[in-house]
Amino acid sequence: MKTAKSKKTSVSPAVRKKKSPAVKKTKKIAVKTDRGLVMVITGNGNGKTTAAFGQALRAIGQGYKVFVLQFMKGRKYGEFIAAEKYLPRLTIRMSGLDSFVMRDNPAAIDIELAQKGLAAAKKAIASGKYDMVILDEINVALDFKLIGLQEVIELIKNKPVSLDLILTGRYAPPEIIELADTVSEIKEVKHHYSKGIKDRAGIEY
Amino acid sequence: MKTAKSKKTSVSPAVRKKKSPAVKKTKKIAVKTDRGLVMVITGNGNGKTTAAFGQALRAIGQGYKVFVLQFMKGRKYGEFIAAEKYLPRLTIRMSGLDSFVMRDNPAAIDIELAQKGLAAAKKAIASGKYDMVILDEINVALDFKLIGLQEVIELIKNKPVSLDLILTGRYAPPEIIELADTVSEIKEVKHHYSKGIKDRAGIEY
Repeated sequence: MKTAKSKKTSVSPAVRKKKSPAVKKTKKIAVKTDRGLVMVITGNGNGKTTAAFGQALRAIGQGYKVFVLQFMKGRKYGEFIAAEKYLPRLTIRMSGLDSFVMRDNPAAIDIELAQKGLAAAKKAIASGKYDMVILDEINVALDFKLIGLQEVIELIKNKPVSLDLILTGRYAPPEIIELADTVSEIKEVKHHYSKGIKDRAGIEY
Repeated sequence: MKTAKSKKTSVSPAVRKKKSPAVKKTKKIAVKTDRGLVMVITGNGNGKTTAAFGQALRAIGQGYKVFVLQFMKGRKYGEFIAAEKYLPRLTIRMSGLDSFVMRDNPAAIDIELAQKGLAAAKKAIASGKYDMVILDEINVALDFKLIGLQEVIELIKNKPVSLDLILTGRYAPPEIIELADTVSEIKEVKHHYSKGIKDRAGIEY
């Protein structure tokens, strides 16, 4: 494959704006010093967790280490299996059961597991081992009152400066949106469930 | 780690609905026979390409093979580097330059590369080697008229039944949305660009 540079010179570079600085080729482990972002991915549409994992994959390619805490999940989704098998720079922990939580009447075990998950996330953040931390479905854990909003606000405010922090899940509370640098809302325009198509490996899990 | 099943029996399974069928543990390569989906990820918000790559990672974890054709991209983003380094089941091809395409006046080379990309995508789809094909930024290539809408409609209509096909990018045309099973629109609620934060490795590329 020709390099982008050699291609570029042949097509009137004067009218072209370069997209962004060239990726440095290095075999060293990246040391992240820039200000990290707080990103929220919310909304009722498909693609919140996958967007977070795609961001993790992008970061890993650039040499960073990523930690994911999955709230309210107790089963290995495809991304978990792929990470275990292929991605040494991606650490995932689950902190939930493989069953639905009752929104208006969560079991004590659901609350306990979510709070343990939050403690594990805090520990991972404080360890300094990771460049990016993803708190998957934390917005739902907040909405279901499995964990306290104030504790998550403090976690965001006190994160290491260079850490990128991503929070996913429906129902992101306004206080979290206020603190975030970037918020994407994924809206469902249409969904295959309405055609009677069921959950399947590789798509939903 | 205890299995999800053993956890579940301790927390009143009667009130619990299982999320979905258990993941089969197998070392064999999966053979996909279910009806594949057509998914569109569009909108002006952050996370379209990453959502597609997260979906790829999920599929890979379940034993599937994924092909990605990136339209209008000519530089290796983090996900490309990660795929080359770690993910033997993820094949990515780029078909563009590392520079912006002028919407109202694309260069001949931009059109040529996009059309070559579409031909490569068709070939990959027809090869039967892949369970999922992602056409990244194809909606933008359509909007910029680098490729023809009718050709993409035919590609979707004639895809192998079991193939999952994902089309990303802003400006998804209504004809593509009509054909899709699932459409997610990612809306920008806020973006760190407005705080003057610039593109950075691991986030934008």
